[in-house]
Amino acid sequence: MSAVLITNIKLLAGIREELKPLRGNALAEMPSVPNAWLLTEGAHIAAFGSMDALPEAVSQQLTKVVDAKGGIVLPAWCDSHTHLVFPASREEEFIDKIKGLSYAEIAAKGGGILNSARKLQDASEDQLFQDAWKRLQELMRSGTGAIEIKSGYGLSPEGELKMLRVIKRLKERAPIPVKATFLGAHTYPAAFKEDHEGYIRQIIDEMLPVIAAEKLADYIDVFCESGFFSPEETIRICEAGKQYGLKPKIHANQLNLSGGVQAGLLLGALSVDHLETMDDATISLLAASDTIGTLLPNAAFFLRMPFQPARAMIGAGAAIALASDLNPGSSPSGNMNLVVAMSCIQMKMLPEEAINAATFNGACAMELQEQYGSIAIGKKANLILTRPVPSLAYLPYAFGSNLVDNVMISGEFINS
Amino acid sequence: MSAVLITNIKLLAGIREELKPLRGNALAEMPSVPNAWLLTEGAHIAAFGSMDALPEAVSQQLTKVVDAKGGIVLPAWCDSHTHLVFPASREEEFIDKIKGLSYAEIAAKGGGILNSARKLQDASEDQLFQDAWKRLQELMRSGTGAIEIKSGYGLSPEGELKMLRVIKRLKERAPIPVKATFLGAHTYPAAFKEDHEGYIRQIIDEMLPVIAAEKLADYIDVFCESGFFSPEETIRICEAGKQYGLKPKIHANQLNLSGGVQAGLLLGALSVDHLETMDDATISLLAASDTIGTLLPNAAFFLRMPFQPARAMIGAGAAIALASDLNPGSSPSGNMNLVVAMSCIQMKMLPEEAINAATFNGACAMELQEQYGSIAIGKKANLILTRPVPSLAYLPYAFGSNLVDNVMISGEFINS
Repeated sequence: MSAVLITNIKLLAGIREELKPLRGNALAEMPSVPNAWLLTEGAHIAAFGSMDALPEAVSQQLTKVVDAKGGIVLPAWCDSHTHLVFPASREEEFIDKIKGLSYAEIAAKGGGILNSARKLQDASEDQLFQDAWKRLQELMRSGTGAIEIKSGYGLSPEGELKMLRVIKRLKERAPIPVKATFLGAHTYPAAFKEDHEGYIRQIIDEMLPVIAAEKLADYIDVFCESGFFSPEETIRICEAGKQYGLKPKIHANQLNLSGGVQAGLLLGALSVDHLETMDDATISLLAASDTIGTLLPNAAFFLRMPFQPARAMIGAGAAIALASDLNPGSSPSGNMNLVVAMSCIQMKMLPEEAINAATFNGACAMELQEQYGSIAIGKKANLILTRPVPSLAYLPYAFGSNLVDNVMISGEFINS
Repeated sequence: MSAVLITNIKLLAGIREELKPLRGNALAEMPSVPNAWLLTEGAHIAAFGSMDALPEAVSQQLTKVVDAKGGIVLPAWCDSHTHLVFPASREEEFIDKIKGLSYAEIAAKGGGILNSARKLQDASEDQLFQDAWKRLQELMRSGTGAIEIKSGYGLSPEGELKMLRVIKRLKERAPIPVKATFLGAHTYPAAFKEDHEGYIRQIIDEMLPVIAAEKLADYIDVFCESGFFSPEETIRICEAGKQYGLKPKIHANQLNLSGGVQAGLLLGALSVDHLETMDDATISLLAASDTIGTLLPNAAFFLRMPFQPARAMIGAGAAIALASDLNPGSSPSGNMNLVVAMSCIQMKMLPEEAINAATFNGACAMELQEQYGSIAIGKKANLILTRPVPSLAYLPYAFGSNLVDNVMISGEFINS
């Protein structure tokens, strides 16, 4: 079993044993060891401590010693909301939006989710896998150590199952944990534009049984939004998913006070995600629940929308996570370092809050916190080693710099 | 003389012979060769063309052939407004601002420009040079091929001259062109808080003659803003600089309709920079002038201010450039790729407009356009080679990805 010792860590940050999502003041706590060492054995964290007291036993039988040279070590990012599998980038719609075309006009030109859905029909499972694999490698190099991936560009039994099988292959091959979410209810496909009931029945009667039989998903998601799926439809679809053991994670309150959060809470959702549009009552409800509120600031930034009211949610005591929302329409970036920076700069989150929300609480939003998202003996050694920086706060402050020096996945540095 | 051939370039973009800043519809023009090759001889661009017609003569006596593998080649970024030389990062103020402290409260704690000024007093010229050199290397690796650097944290004859001597050393050693701007009038130093006249006389009578004698600056800059330097003071200081041959580049209209743009136009300034706060009349005046409007979206982003009205300025026919404003207080990022992305996403600039504004018009704002900022035979080979991407628009669209594969400076790839 390989044993790697990392020495001269300026700050070993994010040490915790607890398993419940952080909320309120606890979100700003960052238990750390300054001037630290960390030892991995195999894929796991075996020990850590202060450089002032490096036990002699540690120096025996090491496979490798890495001098962090004053870099910070923190848990790798846990990105709990992505659409990593998609057939093609959509920068042509980006240009259309810059030119002032409305969402409706872009949709009329064949754009939006249906653009991806059309291209996905023609894409082979192999091609989808290869493209997604490359994206995943890039994300891992930028520090992502656990990820959730949704379907939702299939919008037909064949297409959704193709996507979920691609995600299953990613799950089997990737060195980081992958959670699969079934998002058949992303929008209504063109053929069911006037027959919502027909599509919902297809989801419930045709897709879900196969997904369950092939164990293709961990979670179920619905885009609960005016003009998409109503709270009632969301509840109906998710209840059907729950029958097969799929826990709900809901797209809620992106564009409107859609009732998506309330639907999620009724369902006992693991998380409600987006939350650009919140009022005090909805924030209070969320804060009183066990459901995690997952904020996706990239989407707000890319769509020029107001950012999520993170401070109000933290103040109310809600458990919040940060995720990238990587997708070709509204968030063509999965760089979690930038998500954390944007959250501090635009949503006034403290660096500790943003880092906890993007690591430990992100892990909780994927039910991975027993092994990921914090530093503790026995947990998986999925870690970020930064370049030498003056402080933890420097990471979001220097928002345009790539400060990730290396990333350790299951005890091995990937940029060796 | 070395000769490097780059083949299989998906798009060779930014080819131009003209030397006047681009404005109006011309800003969106991106003369390009698809599927191209480019040949450098020594530090210069020697030839380029389509891969369909690669002359046999080109293959003779090559030092090196680089396969671009479908990457795009464009001129390296010309960053015409930075404060690259500074003594220390200021992330502690970033945290204070997140916590809600006002500018005045941060100033009372010793923060702001005066924080940097105090630390600069104690910093040695060598240390300042070493730190700035490291930053410059990072910027070059991210694609910056020409840069302007300001003084302004000295705020005393000794301190300003120290900064300008550091910039002179950077100019002498750097492989890219460096332009030096004297910004003694960045703010009033503590000792002159109640004696503005005294500080202005120090700038004019004590600093400028030495700067001129030692040839320490190319340009003169004043922070023309309510509470800082008035338009009248700006004009007085810049007129004094002009006597020594220093052309004005003005900090104008960041926080208020300060009259800074008007002062700049009266002075025949090369550029007026910032421009967050503009009205139609000021935009019209700027558009009717030869002065370049330099937009600094990073500062707006980092300070959570409204972005510059780029579309209105382009529509009115103003010549606009984009720059990073790299500085430890309001823009701790010099990554021009992100500046270009932010300009498209938040200011609705077309990718071609943003790239032209960050290359050719940036070169014009440093009077470097004869050799930098575009692709033409005989110009310096300062180029960006991107990773394989589907289109030019993909660069700002995929805003969180590092798409720079390599950077050529004076005919040599720096990430070999």
